[in-house]
Amino acid sequence: MQDKSSLPIGVFDSGIGGLTVVHSLLKLLPNENIIYFGDTARVPYGPKSPEAVRGYAKQDAHFLVSQNVKMIVIACNTVSAVALDVVQKESNVPVVGVIVPGAKSAIQSSRKKRIGVIGTKGTIASNAYTNAIRQFDSDAKVFGKACPLFVSLAEEGFINHKATEMIANEYLFSFKQEKIDTLVLGCTHYPILSEVIQKSVSEEVTLIDSGIAVAEEVKQLLEEKELQNRSKHKPNILFYVSDVPEKFTEVGERFLGMKMGKVRRAEGFLI
Amino acid sequence: MQDKSSLPIGVFDSGIGGLTVVHSLLKLLPNENIIYFGDTARVPYGPKSPEAVRGYAKQDAHFLVSQNVKMIVIACNTVSAVALDVVQKESNVPVVGVIVPGAKSAIQSSRKKRIGVIGTKGTIASNAYTNAIRQFDSDAKVFGKACPLFVSLAEEGFINHKATEMIANEYLFSFKQEKIDTLVLGCTHYPILSEVIQKSVSEEVTLIDSGIAVAEEVKQLLEEKELQNRSKHKPNILFYVSDVPEKFTEVGERFLGMKMGKVRRAEGFLI
Repeated sequence: MQDKSSLPIGVFDSGIGGLTVVHSLLKLLPNENIIYFGDTARVPYGPKSPEAVRGYAKQDAHFLVSQNVKMIVIACNTVSAVALDVVQKESNVPVVGVIVPGAKSAIQSSRKKRIGVIGTKGTIASNAYTNAIRQFDSDAKVFGKACPLFVSLAEEGFINHKATEMIANEYLFSFKQEKIDTLVLGCTHYPILSEVIQKSVSEEVTLIDSGIAVAEEVKQLLEEKELQNRSKHKPNILFYVSDVPEKFTEVGERFLGMKMGKVRRAEGFLI
Repeated sequence: MQDKSSLPIGVFDSGIGGLTVVHSLLKLLPNENIIYFGDTARVPYGPKSPEAVRGYAKQDAHFLVSQNVKMIVIACNTVSAVALDVVQKESNVPVVGVIVPGAKSAIQSSRKKRIGVIGTKGTIASNAYTNAIRQFDSDAKVFGKACPLFVSLAEEGFINHKATEMIANEYLFSFKQEKIDTLVLGCTHYPILSEVIQKSVSEEVTLIDSGIAVAEEVKQLLEEKELQNRSKHKPNILFYVSDVPEKFTEVGERFLGMKMGKVRRAEGFLI
């Protein structure tokens, strides 16, 4: 059998948000090769129908499989919520979504078992987090809230901005009445806004960055399957997008938290 | 020769924004049949590359041509700015974009010939308005500013919201120093936010809604080509989208300013 351990981990998202997951992967697993794919030609997935997202996810997974990856990480909550099965069917390697690790991390953190979840309209409407959290604890109370404007605010760099604070207060005020002690950032864009979100829900609430939870899940899975990269070479981190690569780097580096190098164009996505 | 006058006018946009143009068409040309197509499976076009937008525009035009329309109105500034030629090549009927009518209307309104243009990143980067305005008056001073957050604020219903005011003030404050007397709303979403925009640039500045300018252009063209619908039947207004039709109606009616009836799914866009 071929030794797959030096093959890259494939990571994909609708666009740029999944880079916060790559950030967590690089921190926890600095020895792994990574291929990232962002579907910038059709971003965002959050407001689109499950049917559309499932079609796109199939193509995204197909691209990563064609790159000979050893594992696929769905760094997009919307895809994880509505198309995990599509990606699994399309892939011949282990697939990790963000929902289950995020739910597990939330239930471990919450003492009162009152958990808030914020995400795109697609993720919240799917109830995927509620169902996953209830798998771990059927008595847990889960309160979901779609925060669609957070994606564009994060991408446009309105990070610590008064307008973002006002919008956050409006989206999140009901969580105070619901007395949550834990809030899942159920969209990979949201960690960029974590300061504003934390202030809005109060310092007592624990924020769950599902990117960190996913990185831990990936680490455990690599160990279980003995797939950790043991090569002494400096790992390769490659970035692919479906639209033209220009402009991806500027916002991308803010999400990744470091320099990106060359971004490549994945063929076959533009008409 | 077949009498084409009772055929519908085809109108398309990346999604929902073009409904403000339909609103103007219905007002000025209440006797015309209209088929609207919104590419909701791939919305928005504004942040995407000209290459991607040109590919999508080709498919959108192809859909309207297949519906046997007598004219195509590109109710999207981004497409009008970067893909007018693609739509013309794909169509065997007259094509009207929003840029030239908007530019003409701006130059007619401006006394100081100092004109501001706001739009998506794609529209502003293309300089299409600047070039079109200078065709009418080569001495005109044109100041462009991309306002990407306006699209999601309009779609999410943050219309007369304090946060929208703050963001508008930030985007638009330079126009005061540039002493413009006319501002082109160079994105079909922006008329929804016209109150906030007007307040931000001061009451003295004339706002140009390119939807109204386009409707006038369409009226003139129909007269020139003797294509006005003279049928006594109540006109048909049909709406098609590329993603599933649910959810389109709610926001759509705010943009259209009236009830929409059934929204249909255009086949062949989802994978």
